[in-house]
Amino acid sequence: MAAVAQPPPLKDELDIVIPTIRNLDFLEMWRPFFEPYHLIIVQDGDPTKTIKVPPGFDYELYNRNDINKLLGPRASCISFKDSACRCFGYMVSKKKYIYTIDDDCFVANDPSGKAINALEQHIKNLLCPSTPYFFNTLYDPFREGADYVRGYPFSLREGAPTAVSHGLWLNIPDYDAPTQLVKPLERNTRYVDAVMTIPKGTLFPMCGMNLAFDRDLIGPAMYFGLMGDGQPIGRYDDMWAGWCCKVICDHLGLGIKTGLPYIYHSKASNPFVNLRKEYKGIFWQEDIIPFFQNVVLPKECTTVQKCYIELSKQVKEKLSKIDPYFDKLADAMVTWIEAWDDLNSSRASKANGKA
Amino acid sequence: MAAVAQPPPLKDELDIVIPTIRNLDFLEMWRPFFEPYHLIIVQDGDPTKTIKVPPGFDYELYNRNDINKLLGPRASCISFKDSACRCFGYMVSKKKYIYTIDDDCFVANDPSGKAINALEQHIKNLLCPSTPYFFNTLYDPFREGADYVRGYPFSLREGAPTAVSHGLWLNIPDYDAPTQLVKPLERNTRYVDAVMTIPKGTLFPMCGMNLAFDRDLIGPAMYFGLMGDGQPIGRYDDMWAGWCCKVICDHLGLGIKTGLPYIYHSKASNPFVNLRKEYKGIFWQEDIIPFFQNVVLPKECTTVQKCYIELSKQVKEKLSKIDPYFDKLADAMVTWIEAWDDLNSSRASKANGKA
Repeated sequence: MAAVAQPPPLKDELDIVIPTIRNLDFLEMWRPFFEPYHLIIVQDGDPTKTIKVPPGFDYELYNRNDINKLLGPRASCISFKDSACRCFGYMVSKKKYIYTIDDDCFVANDPSGKAINALEQHIKNLLCPSTPYFFNTLYDPFREGADYVRGYPFSLREGAPTAVSHGLWLNIPDYDAPTQLVKPLERNTRYVDAVMTIPKGTLFPMCGMNLAFDRDLIGPAMYFGLMGDGQPIGRYDDMWAGWCCKVICDHLGLGIKTGLPYIYHSKASNPFVNLRKEYKGIFWQEDIIPFFQNVVLPKECTTVQKCYIELSKQVKEKLSKIDPYFDKLADAMVTWIEAWDDLNSSRASKANGKA
Repeated sequence: MAAVAQPPPLKDELDIVIPTIRNLDFLEMWRPFFEPYHLIIVQDGDPTKTIKVPPGFDYELYNRNDINKLLGPRASCISFKDSACRCFGYMVSKKKYIYTIDDDCFVANDPSGKAINALEQHIKNLLCPSTPYFFNTLYDPFREGADYVRGYPFSLREGAPTAVSHGLWLNIPDYDAPTQLVKPLERNTRYVDAVMTIPKGTLFPMCGMNLAFDRDLIGPAMYFGLMGDGQPIGRYDDMWAGWCCKVICDHLGLGIKTGLPYIYHSKASNPFVNLRKEYKGIFWQEDIIPFFQNVVLPKECTTVQKCYIELSKQVKEKLSKIDPYFDKLADAMVTWIEAWDDLNSSRASKANGKA
């Protein structure tokens, strides 16, 4: 590898965020990997329901009442009846790194049959640089047994700090409703032993099922938008976050990796329900993508927050004509940043003994 | 897969181009895969030497005398004492597809131990579209068992015609001299079961060791420059071709894929010799890459030839200040296109019964 970096366990620097509406039995399978870490469980839907967490896990749980209490009127920016509510967990975390996983994702095996420690691979991905400025044909040059190939400019070999690690899924692939309907039996069985950087200037579909990021570097841009209850679309929460994060990472000189680790995605969501959630997004997206492909953030935007506020202005200006939803979304983006800053700065003050 | 395309054998549509200075014993191992195809052997160095080709192969062989005879004064654009001479083979081919391979490359095995038919995979890559406008996280959506993931815009799913298929190498990785010197024992043992498109706007280091392309789509841009005898650099022939091809493909809406197939690269070239060849390229490259990253081709450039001539002008204008070599190279780029057009149009005329 181009540089040596042994991933530390990061026990005190990483939170696992899980959005759910049910008992977290799936954690049993993850016990050897997740038990050392702190969990932030964001309970979606009916707050009077009790979510059972297997014994032995260290966790805090927030339901809708908690969210409303903590954020007050600003709670409006957190989606309800949609797993997009998970981003509330990012906001209340006090750690540098976040790993988020869906509760229908299990431990996958590598081709040798060994259980994959997804978290360990994400940490490796986040702790070594990305290579967004030039494509390395042998993939991540920082992996063991790999390096930069002939012709890779030496001045670019330092890379960029990695802000996001996007993991993949064996078994049920993350398809849209039309593809699910056309290919109900397709399963992903191909284990691709690679990690790579999404090049600068290229957008990608970021899935929130198996995702890690550096909260200090990109946290305030990890807003999963307005989905679910009272909103005209669903299933674009992670996509929206991915497009926002990508243009901000490109602007700030940060990297996004995709590939390993795999998790085992156990069950496909209902394609008919998905189609209802997605159908507006499917055609709105045809305008949203060119918008993000052409976003230019001014030099003055030197922090994630500044970038995100600027982005919200451009969303309002350029996407509101598609549908009034984007006007509301642009406002929610501002509310999200206000809530983030409020929660995190007051905590920072407390930590400094000022409050 | 997103579309079904069974690769035809393409026997009459593909030439294999091999540059060499020695007997082609390596072909024995490739016999089951290469024997059905026509070979174009470009003999480098001393033309009086006889190159032995194992029996049973259908081939034509060109040495330096043949090149001089066929191209006259324009033969100056074809490198001597450097494998960059291989591009002469691209020029004289009459086929739609070219596969080029080095004579120290052998058949690799996949993880199950099966011999990899590299040519078959290249043909698959070339016959289905590329996806340069948006990144697909499950890699090539046209492979069996894969597709476009949720969030991939439907309007972009047609993709772009694939012009180039860049294959990789197991065993000896394609490292530059400094990396070879630092890591003499590193071997590539990681079989990454993926094919992917290099996104639009991203440059990559194209290696000529295991490379296929569509001659009709991109042939005239596959010029391997001036290397070897009388030239100040070597080992940048394929890189130069790759950078030129990439900006032209981006401009013309064509795609470049990288990944599978692997070949087994048997022996590392001498790092000390390589360092002598490379050292000017290593620092020139720091100016060349920004040049290619910023190249804009005007709308009027609607053919590969027009793009290439325009590129030669920009090379002369912007890179000649680095070294007089680029002035010479820019002229050679024009000579190459003249020779290409001359050879191919006269042949086209003959085919039409006009000559």
